[in-house]
Amino acid sequence: MVQLYDDERIDYLTADEDMRIIQSPTAFSFSLDAVLLAHFASIPIKRGSILDLCSGNGAIPLLLSRKTNALITGVEIQDRIIDMAKRSVELNNLTDSIQMIHGDIRELKGVLNHSSFDVVTCNPPYFKTPSQTEHNHNEYLTIARHEVMCTLDDVVKACKLHVKPGGKVAMVHRPGRLVDILTTMRSYKLEPKRLQLVYPKKGKEANMLLIEAIRDGKADLHILPPLFVYNEDGTYTEEASVIIYD
Amino acid sequence: MVQLYDDERIDYLTADEDMRIIQSPTAFSFSLDAVLLAHFASIPIKRGSILDLCSGNGAIPLLLSRKTNALITGVEIQDRIIDMAKRSVELNNLTDSIQMIHGDIRELKGVLNHSSFDVVTCNPPYFKTPSQTEHNHNEYLTIARHEVMCTLDDVVKACKLHVKPGGKVAMVHRPGRLVDILTTMRSYKLEPKRLQLVYPKKGKEANMLLIEAIRDGKADLHILPPLFVYNEDGTYTEEASVIIYD
Repeated sequence: MVQLYDDERIDYLTADEDMRIIQSPTAFSFSLDAVLLAHFASIPIKRGSILDLCSGNGAIPLLLSRKTNALITGVEIQDRIIDMAKRSVELNNLTDSIQMIHGDIRELKGVLNHSSFDVVTCNPPYFKTPSQTEHNHNEYLTIARHEVMCTLDDVVKACKLHVKPGGKVAMVHRPGRLVDILTTMRSYKLEPKRLQLVYPKKGKEANMLLIEAIRDGKADLHILPPLFVYNEDGTYTEEASVIIYD
Repeated sequence: MVQLYDDERIDYLTADEDMRIIQSPTAFSFSLDAVLLAHFASIPIKRGSILDLCSGNGAIPLLLSRKTNALITGVEIQDRIIDMAKRSVELNNLTDSIQMIHGDIRELKGVLNHSSFDVVTCNPPYFKTPSQTEHNHNEYLTIARHEVMCTLDDVVKACKLHVKPGGKVAMVHRPGRLVDILTTMRSYKLEPKRLQLVYPKKGKEANMLLIEAIRDGKADLHILPPLFVYNEDGTYTEEASVIIYD
């Protein structure tokens, strides 16, 4: 039994229908970005701790919980959305392995220990300044997509504060921000080690990137094979299907 | 008529055999990297000026001269190698459009004007510190491949000094140095605008990158479709052939 608000629905989060998630077209729905990040991040399997910042309706914690026994903590600033995430955790009987915290990633002192997580994941707001139109349209989506409540610098700083020395930080973002991301990560001594570009289809520019850094790591970036999402006919490529139907 | 030293030979620089270049297995031979950079760089066609730093035996100036009426200046620090480049320019009757200068890119004050070139290209030494073995093996190749005579910072600084405001800087390099490249470019106000990753074949990590920055440009990086060089059977892919047989 789970309570749903009028604009909410329950979707399958995974293709084999073993996990469900509460979604809302007006408040928050997870996207392919979260699915790709959950697949890309290198996580501990048997034990350990994972922190997911800007967690939204909890898609990444839910997806990661299928692959690991590590304890997963998600942080989300919007109370309407963290409430959806908490109900999804209950719906999947995962309250023992996933803890969702309502909080501001800039103000987690006293809430979460510093330098304590093996891995930090984050699907942050992508865009710098919302136009006035977008800003007025829908406050939930504006905060999720634009740097209203936290900037890229805030996000990277929070990742650095909470990951262990030698621990990993994995993020999904847009190519237009790659220079910002790499320079900011390095300035916080999170050294980028793995980068994967995601292309909507052959012949198009990349529209997404996946990046993993190691706290206090040595400089040496590896650029993984590119990931193409769609075939010419609009169906998923084999490599995307493997991830989505994982 | 051109004079050749014992270890030198004349190769065709282009597939349609309209241009030749003096090569030496012991001193310097151009590589695919130079061919890809010459194709990738956005250059003025009808007039203007182009500077090629770390020019080696002149492959990039020679290749660019086929596509533009701009005046091209190449700078190379090794006298043995600039001498090869000069003889190749003569061999192709291009002394009116290509000028090769023997010089140190760190010390071009009084030799070349600041802020004066429309485009600066560079295929710099890729590797940080030569191991002792490599260092002793062959001095010519060591200087061409390792940061013995100039560091990445020296290269980017020289690009910045000589390119016009709003002008373009194009470079070929290795993925392992991407973070260094982007942070250094931005620190010199060369804003990276176009990035292309080059993969030896499908399923492999990138082993080369092409990057173009604009002096005083606005932050917004575009990541172009990836370039695969070889098919599974070791032949060139169609997209690589188009460039190589351009």
